[in-house]
Amino acid sequence: MTDIRGYATHDALALAGRLADAARIETLRYFRTDQLATESKEAQFDPVTVADRAAEAAMRDLIEAERPQDGILGEEYDDKQSRSGLTWVLDPIDGTRGYISGTPTWGVLIALCDETGPRLGIIDQPYIGERFIGAPGLAQLQGPQGPRSLKARAPRALGEATLFTTFPEVGTAAEGAAFARVAAAAQLVRYGTDCYAYALLAAGQIDLVIEAGLNPYDICAPIAVIEAAGGIVTDWTGGAAHGGGRVIAAANPQIHADALVLLAG
Amino acid sequence: MTDIRGYATHDALALAGRLADAARIETLRYFRTDQLATESKEAQFDPVTVADRAAEAAMRDLIEAERPQDGILGEEYDDKQSRSGLTWVLDPIDGTRGYISGTPTWGVLIALCDETGPRLGIIDQPYIGERFIGAPGLAQLQGPQGPRSLKARAPRALGEATLFTTFPEVGTAAEGAAFARVAAAAQLVRYGTDCYAYALLAAGQIDLVIEAGLNPYDICAPIAVIEAAGGIVTDWTGGAAHGGGRVIAAANPQIHADALVLLAG
Repeated sequence: MTDIRGYATHDALALAGRLADAARIETLRYFRTDQLATESKEAQFDPVTVADRAAEAAMRDLIEAERPQDGILGEEYDDKQSRSGLTWVLDPIDGTRGYISGTPTWGVLIALCDETGPRLGIIDQPYIGERFIGAPGLAQLQGPQGPRSLKARAPRALGEATLFTTFPEVGTAAEGAAFARVAAAAQLVRYGTDCYAYALLAAGQIDLVIEAGLNPYDICAPIAVIEAAGGIVTDWTGGAAHGGGRVIAAANPQIHADALVLLAG
Repeated sequence: MTDIRGYATHDALALAGRLADAARIETLRYFRTDQLATESKEAQFDPVTVADRAAEAAMRDLIEAERPQDGILGEEYDDKQSRSGLTWVLDPIDGTRGYISGTPTWGVLIALCDETGPRLGIIDQPYIGERFIGAPGLAQLQGPQGPRSLKARAPRALGEATLFTTFPEVGTAAEGAAFARVAAAAQLVRYGTDCYAYALLAAGQIDLVIEAGLNPYDICAPIAVIEAAGGIVTDWTGGAAHGGGRVIAAANPQIHADALVLLAG
């Protein structure tokens, strides 16, 4: 395995795994329990739970102890600037609406980024006990059926493709219309999976994920996992996606190109 | 535990558990594998997999061996008339679209019905290893966190409620409009979970599930699980739901009544 800006990938993976382990404990402490308290962060319903904050705090503590020179960008607390050129990008619970509903498709997102973007990522589903991992030289699922390699799908026509997104309305009216053009061309469209859709794409189960209005911490870990599995993640014009916004993840360059044409209108 | 038409509930539960065990083996044999072959049953995309047929056949074999006098109503094979007054209602893979996409929210549905409707039911999610069970005197989840009691939620206002359905369009245009009236009044609406939504309702995680166009084998097991957990399942006019069609599942009679008013228009 190659290094990530002088940080041995093996060591970075080990720390990322410990972060995910810590987040599992904190997120499962409240999942499907009566104690789960929600609060509204914005006028639109967007619950942030006690577990969300506790999981991010636990991950930050581990990073501070082992890699104090690294930056941290997380959903719940202030940014910490990097002095190493590397930054950990954390979403302690991606899919809080799913989390408070009890569905097993929310996840803990952990990425390690340099100035070029995500280099290592984990999508962890604590309740199922599934961990989707991408890093230089590694694309692996650790789950209830044992370790499996992750490999994105071979090309197929849009008319035979499966497309996922989280909300049917997708984003603005214009974004929703662009999504609808791709949806109309696809064979199957499914909703409601949050980060789990990106994990399924890396696992070769689906062809496309299209979303809008994402934050960097929503997409950095999926980018690392999907790219390690041979897929591609960009914004809707083919540019870098790790800044968030409008994102398309595709199993291969061919279906990516086909979908970009329809998104452009 | 009371008997179910002279069949000891303990024995019926044991057989139902063996059916679910057999279906787990057959469904997991193909889940997330390249061998998963799909075929189109109708013009609308509705894949039926090898696993679907194998799982139902395995369950039928067990019923024939132990309870040859019982009827069988399954998705994949011809009906078998009952000579005992009891009928097993089976859906080997509820949510085949989710199954072929790799999501962990499809399920195996097993119900035992008499002339009044479902008396015992199991919603099983093989990949996670979760089994939601309802029978006279029993409402239990067996899952990765050990056994837990199932209890549907206490009443809350529609404006604080979570509503699930599988497809955003729900059914016909009129059915979609009726659903939209309830959705507009709810706090949170989620899609794409198939039978798993009914399991979450029985587990006290959500308040309402509303669907249309269901078959009897889609809803008999959820009815038994939800009623055992204290919830209520009817058609959109408050009548019996085990025949399928338009179905509403509610955590309690209060929110059921509130939603029925909006469904009626």
